[in-house]
Amino acid sequence: MIDTFEIVGLVAAFLTTSAFVPQVYKAWKTKSTESLSLPMYLIFFIGIMLWLIYGFHLNSLAMIVSNIITGILALLLIILKIKHQ
Amino acid sequence: MIDTFEIVGLVAAFLTTSAFVPQVYKAWKTKSTESLSLPMYLIFFIGIMLWLIYGFHLNSLAMIVSNIITGILALLLIILKIKHQ
Repeated sequence: MIDTFEIVGLVAAFLTTSAFVPQVYKAWKTKSTESLSLPMYLIFFIGIMLWLIYGFHLNSLAMIVSNIITGILALLLIILKIKHQ
Repeated sequence: MIDTFEIVGLVAAFLTTSAFVPQVYKAWKTKSTESLSLPMYLIFFIGIMLWLIYGFHLNSLAMIVSNIITGILALLLIILKIKHQ
């Protein structure tokens, strides 16, 4: 049986990853990115790549999958920000 | 001696937490929050609170500290977004 706290961790990973979907959708749909901070997403993206390395080290599928998806979403926001600024 | 991968994890935690500082600064300084997605930060904040619970369960000081700080920064962005929208 899966530990209750492991479910909390999986739900946490799901929420902090999927949170970026409405932000990508909004930036793509409205082309409005002026209040987005480019330094935030650059620092965040580098951090996510390090979490991914750490996830591979821990052999944690949840960490690997969620950080790959979050990394793609952060990269999309960086591209949209540079394109529309 | 601390494992190299533990350092990677600590740097990752530092970067994904501190990334929100330039975003909070920008939103506070410019009062511009229209391209920020409120659903993103609400979902993200709930996710961070679950990571915090998971961090307490794992007795991971790095997870506890970084998620408390990230939670405060996300909450500040939610307040600024609601205030200036």
